[in-house]
Amino acid sequence: MIKGGITAPRGFKASGISCGIKEEGPDLALIYSDVQAASAALFTTNKVKAAPVLISQQHISDGRIQAIVANSGMANCCTGKQGLKDASLMAEWTANSLGGIPKESVLVASTGKIGSQLPMEKIGPGIKEAAANLSRDGGKDAARAIMTTDTRPKEAALEVELFGRKVTLGGIAKGAGMIHPEMATMLAFITTDALISPPLLKKALLHSVERSFNMITVDGDMSTNDMAAILANGLAAEKGEEITYPSKEFDLFQAALDKLSIDLAKQIPADGEGATKLLEVKVTGALIKEDAGRFARAVAGSNLVKAAFYGCDPNVGRIMAALGQAGEEMEPEEVEIYFGDQLMFRNGCGATFDPAKVASIMEQKEIRIDIDLNLGEAKATAWGCDLSPEYVQINAHYRT
Amino acid sequence: MIKGGITAPRGFKASGISCGIKEEGPDLALIYSDVQAASAALFTTNKVKAAPVLISQQHISDGRIQAIVANSGMANCCTGKQGLKDASLMAEWTANSLGGIPKESVLVASTGKIGSQLPMEKIGPGIKEAAANLSRDGGKDAARAIMTTDTRPKEAALEVELFGRKVTLGGIAKGAGMIHPEMATMLAFITTDALISPPLLKKALLHSVERSFNMITVDGDMSTNDMAAILANGLAAEKGEEITYPSKEFDLFQAALDKLSIDLAKQIPADGEGATKLLEVKVTGALIKEDAGRFARAVAGSNLVKAAFYGCDPNVGRIMAALGQAGEEMEPEEVEIYFGDQLMFRNGCGATFDPAKVASIMEQKEIRIDIDLNLGEAKATAWGCDLSPEYVQINAHYRT
Repeated sequence: MIKGGITAPRGFKASGISCGIKEEGPDLALIYSDVQAASAALFTTNKVKAAPVLISQQHISDGRIQAIVANSGMANCCTGKQGLKDASLMAEWTANSLGGIPKESVLVASTGKIGSQLPMEKIGPGIKEAAANLSRDGGKDAARAIMTTDTRPKEAALEVELFGRKVTLGGIAKGAGMIHPEMATMLAFITTDALISPPLLKKALLHSVERSFNMITVDGDMSTNDMAAILANGLAAEKGEEITYPSKEFDLFQAALDKLSIDLAKQIPADGEGATKLLEVKVTGALIKEDAGRFARAVAGSNLVKAAFYGCDPNVGRIMAALGQAGEEMEPEEVEIYFGDQLMFRNGCGATFDPAKVASIMEQKEIRIDIDLNLGEAKATAWGCDLSPEYVQINAHYRT
Repeated sequence: MIKGGITAPRGFKASGISCGIKEEGPDLALIYSDVQAASAALFTTNKVKAAPVLISQQHISDGRIQAIVANSGMANCCTGKQGLKDASLMAEWTANSLGGIPKESVLVASTGKIGSQLPMEKIGPGIKEAAANLSRDGGKDAARAIMTTDTRPKEAALEVELFGRKVTLGGIAKGAGMIHPEMATMLAFITTDALISPPLLKKALLHSVERSFNMITVDGDMSTNDMAAILANGLAAEKGEEITYPSKEFDLFQAALDKLSIDLAKQIPADGEGATKLLEVKVTGALIKEDAGRFARAVAGSNLVKAAFYGCDPNVGRIMAALGQAGEEMEPEEVEIYFGDQLMFRNGCGATFDPAKVASIMEQKEIRIDIDLNLGEAKATAWGCDLSPEYVQINAHYRT
């Protein structure tokens, strides 16, 4: 891992400016690659999709993108035909401000309140200002400009050696919940200077997202605006150094992308609305990987488990009930559960534990829950957070 | 509907006493039929099942039950082999106290904390006391004795005319959440003096539970101890008046059982942990009934929708996002949403509404949300409650 974010790889610039969509703070981010980049993106599976999701799905269909424009404050969702026009216009204005690249080379993302039309009279000048401000140091500004209820910007970068040459990956993300329909929601943008084709990039992104962004939860509500996108501009490669599959380089690239994605993803529940703790739920010994993932997400997503961790109550019965509710194959008698290094459950009963040691584990800011189903070899890890009264306050009093 | 509960039908007695399982208040309930009753029950689908669930599943396999013994305070779940012995012993002691009926004629239920062994030295004398206290007026005592975090007992009764004769149905229920694994959880016991075979009773119970207990949610967590049971002792019938299928009498009986079950079921989220409001979510215009049910439960179960209702925020965007997350067929442009009689959403956008009228609807104790998908003819109703900081406080500070 290295310092930096979205502009760490060669040939990427970014900016984040305030154009007045939000009452205060930066609200418009721009990411730009000096050359067209091979690109892949995954979008929300919610049947209600925001206008920028629909437009971006069209624009990325050829696997080539050169810029991403994203606003916070308004989600441009449930906005009808006007919303689609506005999202398309954001791409067009961005393309014009970048010297006339095709508008289909621009991805558009929005995050914020659902149901209001975008203030296009503010966004027009905003895009021009963002384009004028693009710089190699603008990564953190972009990370700030996509925040909604996030309390801090989220970025990460790392280097990996491919073909004997340094290749860099960088990314930013936002989201204070797996989804917050009103403040809709999870966005992740990743850049790299690796040389790789769009289909292989999509394959790598799918693999990483399955193990990172798809394994986090704050409140179980799925956004209408979720988007994870990666741009690979190839500027770290000489001729003949394109990543192919299968190859050692693809494996190294995949491992690097997994690591970056997990780092970004964990930053989201760690900053979850009202959260005081990050919960890492690792399930081992499942029959198949899909089961392991469902068990891990069921535990990380249970309101009752989350409330118990908020209250520092080592309530292993609620974890058993959450596992049983997941509906996958399990034998309650075979399950072993650890909090940190403390055995909490075995042989169908709660274990005798050291109350002082467990109390100190329950008070940590990051708590690891290990669950061994003792049935097979498959495993998965999910990340969540505790549930505090503050979560309810934030979501009860954030007015439409 | 008539006054009363579990002892309203002919030939049923009940009692509720304190034997010290809980720190205070009644904690042991007994329900008894003068004669063996045709019986049916549905149990939790959680893979982790409490010991009394496993024992009761065996005992009801022949469709004949004469008594139900239920304790609150401890769930007898995650208690290993000892838990199974204790649940079986509760049935045996109850059978002995009732003049030596077969122990297989006794259903056993427990609700309360998961993971602790039952205090059998208190339960033994408790069962004797409960048997000595059985009376035709004991229905409300039994309803009180199965409460955990419930703030009030839940009972209902009604009469229906079959074969020109008055037949009575009565019931009690408990649960302050769809499930609360620690205070596990939803119990419903229904009695009737109708004459009906066990298979037909099971058919009728399934139909009613699908439309009542399976359509409520407080927190989305499924119990390890859920049980809905019905006992029909036939004492309202003369010879030749057994309910058959198909028949006009079966339809009347089914309608009566549906009505009683829905009445009992609605009392649960209305008394949900920390709840200040009952939400009734009616979905119409779905392609198939299963879709309608999933949409209704998705809306009633969304943390973000629930927090918005707590905050009196008419946030129709969160309802759209919850519908989209349910994964069933829908066309966002076709959806119409009403709060009470106020149109809130149409043509893919939020509707212009009267803020004063909507504000007064949002402050009511019971709020109806009507969602028309405009795709087909199927419909379903779910009941939930709002999410308050109090819910988190209850579940964070209820210690294991």
